Order: sequence, then structure tokens, then C-alpha cells
Amino acid sequence: MTPSELRQLCRSNQWSRPTSGVCDGYVQCNIVALPNCYAADFARFCALNSQACPVLGQSNPGDIDIAALGHFDIRTDCPRYCVFEHGVMTREVADINDLWADDWVFFALGCSFSFEDSLIDAGIRLRHIEEQKNVAMYNTNIACASAGIFSGNMVVSMRPLTVTDTIRAIQICTRFPRVHGAPIHFGDPAQIGITALESPDYGEAVDILEHEVPVFWACGVTPQRALMAAKVPLAITHSPGHMLVTDLRNAELASL
Amino acid sequence: MTPSELRQLCRSNQWSRPTSGVCDGYVQCNIVALPNCYAADFARFCALNSQACPVLGQSNPGDIDIAALGHFDIRTDCPRYCVFEHGVMTREVADINDLWADDWVFFALGCSFSFEDSLIDAGIRLRHIEEQKNVAMYNTNIACASAGIFSGNMVVSMRPLTVTDTIRAIQICTRFPRVHGAPIHFGDPAQIGITALESPDYGEAVDILEHEVPVFWACGVTPQRALMAAKVPLAITHSPGHMLVTDLRNAELASL
Repeated sequence: MTPSELRQLCRSNQWSRPTSGVCDGYVQCNIVALPNCYAADFARFCALNSQACPVLGQSNPGDIDIAALGHFDIRTDCPRYCVFEHGVMTREVADINDLWADDWVFFALGCSFSFEDSLIDAGIRLRHIEEQKNVAMYNTNIACASAGIFSGNMVVSMRPLTVTDTIRAIQICTRFPRVHGAPIHFGDPAQIGITALESPDYGEAVDILEHEVPVFWACGVTPQRALMAAKVPLAITHSPGHMLVTDLRNAELASL
Repeated sequence: MTPSELRQLCRSNQWSRPTSGVCDGYVQCNIVALPNCYAADFARFCALNSQACPVLGQSNPGDIDIAALGHFDIRTDCPRYCVFEHGVMTREVADINDLWADDWVFFALGCSFSFEDSLIDAGIRLRHIEEQKNVAMYNTNIACASAGIFSGNMVVSMRPLTVTDTIRAIQICTRFPRVHGAPIHFGDPAQIGITALESPDYGEAVDILEHEVPVFWACGVTPQRALMAAKVPLAITHSPGHMLVTDLRNAELASL
């Protein structure tokens, strides 16, 4: 299935499932949409915290696609959306046709699916994928740089790896600065304010075996958390795991 | 001082000290010299274990320099040499004029000084340098691939770093595959057969502070150890720390 075909299915309400493993090799994006009056601050928040919030595209106000990412309709082409009102997620919806306005802007942010592809290609086994779980994610004590109303701590995803695979993963992910880049930490979770690895704040826990270390990457839930804390009257994101699938290939994001 | 000027001082017996910190930015090499009949096996040993034995140059039999590295006289231009007879170091000498023969070959191997330069440039503090010590080195249980009479386990150097600096060091050293490349291990020394970090097999111990991890790189002592184990009747190396300084710049070794 091509990204265009998948998006057509989403648009006609024939696809509402997660996009993990779909359209192999194509870039999937986190989406944040909000009124233009908040866009400059949100863009600056992303620029200041680019490892957690890597911007792959920012739309013109009212535009429903970003040419560099493909021809799509942002109002319909994610499988599902989350609606946030004054910082509270009030519902999940299949499209945002009735919420969209001409002064809205959306951001497409890089997602870990892109670098996980390269890790798996290099023979690195990722436990959450083998166990068909959502990756484990944690709030940290690492403060993001603030921008206007947007602030908060970094959220990280965790994958347990052997030491050898950790070194290799740092090398591979360094090639992908636009999808979170290299891990930001490994080893002792307490150093970044995580007290209980077995109880992730988002996603599902996985076991850490002997001779494995927990490896932490900056995570795309960070901007969503900042969005909620900012209590914007109305904002929309993709529903977790239900990403916008673009026409860009993961390999095109490699810095070298 | 240029590399050429330093080599002239070595040649005229006016410089016999270590070369650490001399001719800033230029590549310094480990040297192994032996009769041509052992050269093919030794070259294969290096090829099979290139992270520990990265060959920057291999001379033609009888040649006293390697054009790509500079114009020099390998018999005089290291500050000091070690003479090995049947695997035993029997003496240190200022030149090897009386030992050299027309059928000898020498190898110039990359050295950690090159990547340490880049680490320091990136603001990473290296304790052994700040404390003016020889880097701590350890025998491991990691078997090298054998080639003819040459075999043995890998020797590693260890530098304690914070987690953040470890990630950055892996990125930086990945750019320098010809001078040992990325670390091969970090964390638990027992996993690679090291039982006592406070008692290095070569060099000097340094403290490991709270929130630091020991980080291990493949080390140029590995080929010297294989040379000794092979019990070659006569072979010569530079004296540890007393390297051949070449006309090549460290930056020229960067893979990108």
C-alpha cells in the first residue's frame, strides 16, 4: 500500500487503526494543529527543543497540506485525532473537518518509527516491537526551554539494549537528527528523574534483561504535553500511534 | 614546531621525550617493524582486527618512509624504540640504524591521540590528560581473529565519562574509524573480562567519579601484545608514548 492509498482509506473512513508497520519505509509524523495566534510560540518551542520536537513541516495558515511531505488533507488523512480543549483531551475523532478554520496551522514532527526502521535493518532487536507493545515512555526532570505559553519537561521513550547495540544505536540514530537523533541518556534512570521503569507514564513496560541497559530517546509526546500545559482553548493532535503517513522516505531523512 | 622539525630533533638525538601534546593537530602513529617474512601475516592480523590495529601505512620492504605520511627515516625519527627478541622486550634504544635490514617492513598504526584531540575540542574533559597520566589500559577476554603466528586478546584503553559525554564521544569517534573508531564497551568491566579497574595492566589508574561510566576503546597495545606472543626472533616498536609524528593532520582522518 502506498502512503497515498492509505491516506485515501483514512479519508473515506475505511482505516482507523494504528499505522505502525504500515507503508514500510515511509516517514510517519506526529501532528499538532492549532490557531495561527499560537503558531509562532509553538514553532519557537520546537526550535528550542528540537531533539524532542523535530519539525519536518509547518503549514501556511489554512493550508491543508505541506508540499514537501506529500499531497494530503490534514483534516481527514490521519486515522484518528485527539481534540484538546483548554489543555484537556475531550474526545477522539475520525476527522477534524468541523473543527478546522482558515487561520489554523499544523506542524508535522518527526517520529521514532523512522529510526526504529534503521535499527531493525542493522539487526538490533527492539523488545516492544517483538512483543507488539507500545514503546514505554516516561516524564523526566529535564526542563525544556520555554517559548511563550509553551513549557514543560522532556518526555522520553525507552528501549532496553545490550551495550554493543547501544553503541551501534547511537551511531545509527546520529544519522537521523530530524527524528529525535541519538539517545539522550542510558543507564541509571534516576539521573533524569525516572523513579520506576516498570511503571511508564505512557505506553507499556518491557523487561530489561541481564546485560541490558535502558536507553532513552527524546520523545514526540513532549510537545503534546507542552500543548496540554499551555491550556490552548482548542488544539488537535493525531491520536497516539495513528500517524500521518507522508510520501517522504525514512532514508531521505538521513543526514549522511 | 612542525612534525618535520620534531623528527629532525629525534634524528640528531636532541629529543627523546614522549610526544603527547607535541605538534598539535598532527597524526601520531604506533610503529611495528619486522622482517618481511612476517609482514603478510601481521598485515592480515591488522586487517582482521582493524579496530585495535588500524593501519595508516605499510612500507615497501627496505623503505624507510611512507610517502602518504611524510618524508622521514623510520630508523631514527621516533624519540625512542623498544627491541623485542623472541617475544621479550630486551632494551630501549634511541635509533635502530644497527638493527635495520633491507628486507624489513614497518607498519604505522593509528593512535588514540588523534581522537582525543577531537574529544577535547568538543569540550569533553579527559581525566588522564588533566592529571598528566598515561591512559589506563587493560587486557580483555575479547579474542582477536588470528593470522598465522599472530593472535591474542584485545587490549583496551579506558576513559571515565559522564553518560552525556559518552554519547557525544561515541558520535565523535565514529568519525575516526582509522584511529580505533567508536568505543567497544562502556559500563560493567567484567563483561569484557576486566576484574579490577583500579589496577590497569598498562598505564595508570584514574578515579571514576559518581555519575561517570568507564568507557573502553580498542587500543594500539593489542598488536604489540600479539607481536610478543608470536615470539618473532627480532622485532621493533616505538617506545610507548614516544610516537612517530607524521605530516598528516588528525582532521584528514575524519571519515566525514
